[in-house]
Amino acid sequence: MDFGVKEVVLTEVGTRDGFQSEKKIVSTNDKIMLINDLVKAGFQRIEFSSFVSPKAIPQLADAAEVIKGVDRNNDVKFTALVPNLRGAIRALECQIDEIVVFLSASESHNQKNLNRSIHESLTGFEEVVKLANDNNIPVHGDISTAFGCPFEGNVQYKKLVEISKQYKALGFKGVTLGDTTGMATPPIVKAAIREIQDNIPDLDITLHFHNTRGVGLANVLIGLNEGIYLYESCFGGIGGCPFAPDATGNICSEDLVYMMNEMNIKTGININHLIKIAKKAEKILEYKLPGQVMHAGERLKKYSLEDVKTAKGN
Amino acid sequence: MDFGVKEVVLTEVGTRDGFQSEKKIVSTNDKIMLINDLVKAGFQRIEFSSFVSPKAIPQLADAAEVIKGVDRNNDVKFTALVPNLRGAIRALECQIDEIVVFLSASESHNQKNLNRSIHESLTGFEEVVKLANDNNIPVHGDISTAFGCPFEGNVQYKKLVEISKQYKALGFKGVTLGDTTGMATPPIVKAAIREIQDNIPDLDITLHFHNTRGVGLANVLIGLNEGIYLYESCFGGIGGCPFAPDATGNICSEDLVYMMNEMNIKTGININHLIKIAKKAEKILEYKLPGQVMHAGERLKKYSLEDVKTAKGN
Repeated sequence: MDFGVKEVVLTEVGTRDGFQSEKKIVSTNDKIMLINDLVKAGFQRIEFSSFVSPKAIPQLADAAEVIKGVDRNNDVKFTALVPNLRGAIRALECQIDEIVVFLSASESHNQKNLNRSIHESLTGFEEVVKLANDNNIPVHGDISTAFGCPFEGNVQYKKLVEISKQYKALGFKGVTLGDTTGMATPPIVKAAIREIQDNIPDLDITLHFHNTRGVGLANVLIGLNEGIYLYESCFGGIGGCPFAPDATGNICSEDLVYMMNEMNIKTGININHLIKIAKKAEKILEYKLPGQVMHAGERLKKYSLEDVKTAKGN
Repeated sequence: MDFGVKEVVLTEVGTRDGFQSEKKIVSTNDKIMLINDLVKAGFQRIEFSSFVSPKAIPQLADAAEVIKGVDRNNDVKFTALVPNLRGAIRALECQIDEIVVFLSASESHNQKNLNRSIHESLTGFEEVVKLANDNNIPVHGDISTAFGCPFEGNVQYKKLVEISKQYKALGFKGVTLGDTTGMATPPIVKAAIREIQDNIPDLDITLHFHNTRGVGLANVLIGLNEGIYLYESCFGGIGGCPFAPDATGNICSEDLVYMMNEMNIKTGININHLIKIAKKAEKILEYKLPGQVMHAGERLKKYSLEDVKTAKGN
C-alpha cells in the first residue's frame, strides 16, 4: 500500500449533516461561532447548511441567517445543499460559493427523501444549473445511498456511473459519493471509485463516509489508495443515521485529520484548534460525542510515571 | 491495495484486556457464560484472563475459577497472560493451552507495569519457559507499548526487533505487538511489521490494536496488506486506556469480523452470535459499549418505507 496522495481537501459538514440529525436545535449564534472557528482552524471548504423546507429539517431553518453572520473575508468556499429551484434561489440570495444538489442512487430512497423519482430530480437540476450559471456559481452533485440503500440493499455501480454521467453533462466538476446509512465497505468503495474513474475519468470524486459500522476510516484508506483527495467529515463525529438510532454518525474530522497528519498527508488544518471546536460542540449538544482524538488527546502527549497508577497487561 | 490474506485467526481478549479495565468486577459466572458463548460463536483462540496478583488486578483474581468453569470439550486454545513463574505455576495447574508472557517495549512502562527492567523480564521468562516446556505447553510473547509509550513517546523499531529476537531464542513461535495506549498509526504499523519480518522472518506476528484515536481498523487494513493474519480484539470494543480515561478501548470484535466478512476474508466466527455476546456484555457492564455493528446491525438489514420518517440530505 503506497499512498500516492500527499495532500487532501476536507469539507467540514458538521453544521449541516451533523446538526440536521440532532434532536437539539443549535442556536444560530452557536452555528456562526463554530463556522468562524472552522475557518480559523484551516478548512478550505465548509458545507454550512441546507436550503430545504424548514418543515422537513427545522434544525437547518436558519441557513440564510447563519451564512449572513459568518465572516466571509477569506478564501473559504461556503457550500450548501439545495434540493430544488426554490432552494437555489434562497441560496443565491445569500451569495454562497457553491450549490450542492443531491439525489439518491436508489429510487425508493430518493422517493422517500425527496418525494420524486431520480429522473425527476435530474430534470429539476437543469433549472438549478441554469440559475447558477446565470449567477456564475458552480454546482456540485451528491449521490446519497451511493454504497447501499436501507430499503433496496446493494446499489449497482452502473447506477453511480449513470448518475455521474448526467452530472457531468450538467456541467458539474465533481460528484460526492454519500454513504448515507454507513453501508460502505473497503471492496465496495474500491469498486465504486474504479467504475466511475474508468467511465468518467475527468470527474472529481469526493468521499462522504459515515462510521455507522466502524469502518469509516478504513474506507478512507481505500480512497487514498485509489488516489482520492477529497473527503467530507463532521467535527466530533456527529451526524446520526435515522435507520440506526444508536449508531454514530459521519466520520470524525479530528480523527481524520489525525490519521492524515500521521500519514504525512497535508490537510492545512490545525488539529488542536479542531479539537477545541469539537469540545465546544460537545458542550453545546450536551452529550459525549463519538470523536476519539478529542477525548484521547494527541498521540505523543507525555505522562509522568506518577500520572497513572498502573495497567497490567497489554 | 490487493489483500493477500484470505483467512484470519482472531483471538478474543474481552474477558482479559476488556474486563481488567472495567470498574465493575464482572462475576465469575458471567465470565464463564460469555466465554462459552465465544466458543459457540466460533473463536479458535480466547485469551480468557491473566494469572497476575489479585491485588494488582482484582478484576481478574478469579482466573483459575473461570477456566475451571469453561467448557473445554472443544479445540479452542485457551490462553492467559502470565507475568512470572508464580503466575505460570497457577496457569499450568489450570491446564491452559498456551502461556502468554509480556513486557513493554519501553523501559519506563515496563518498570511501571511490572516493576522491573526489560532485561529482568526476559531473564524471568527463562524459568517460565523451562516449566512450560516440561509440561509441553507453548509460550507466546507479547510486547506492550509496541507502537508508542505514554512516558517515552515513539518506540524504536530496533527495540521491537531486539525483543522479538530474544523471544525467538526462547523458543516462541510468535510475538504480539500490543498497542497498549492506542498510539499505532498506519505508517508505524507498516514499518514495525517490515522490520520484524526482515530480521526474523519465521516469527508469526499478531496485532493487538486499541481504537483510542479512531484508527484501529485502518491499522488492521495495513496489517492485512502486509500479510498479517493474526489479530486480537474485544467484544463490544471494551477495554480502556488508563492514560485516556474518556477514550474507547480495544478494536471491537464484531466490527472487525464485519469488516473481514465484507472483504471476503474468512474468520470462522458467526457475527450474529458475536453481536448477541456484545449485547450481553453491555447489559452486564451497564453502559453503552463503543462497538458500532452491535448497535447499527447488519449491513443489508432492509427497512420498509414506513420504518423511518425521513432524512434529508446525504
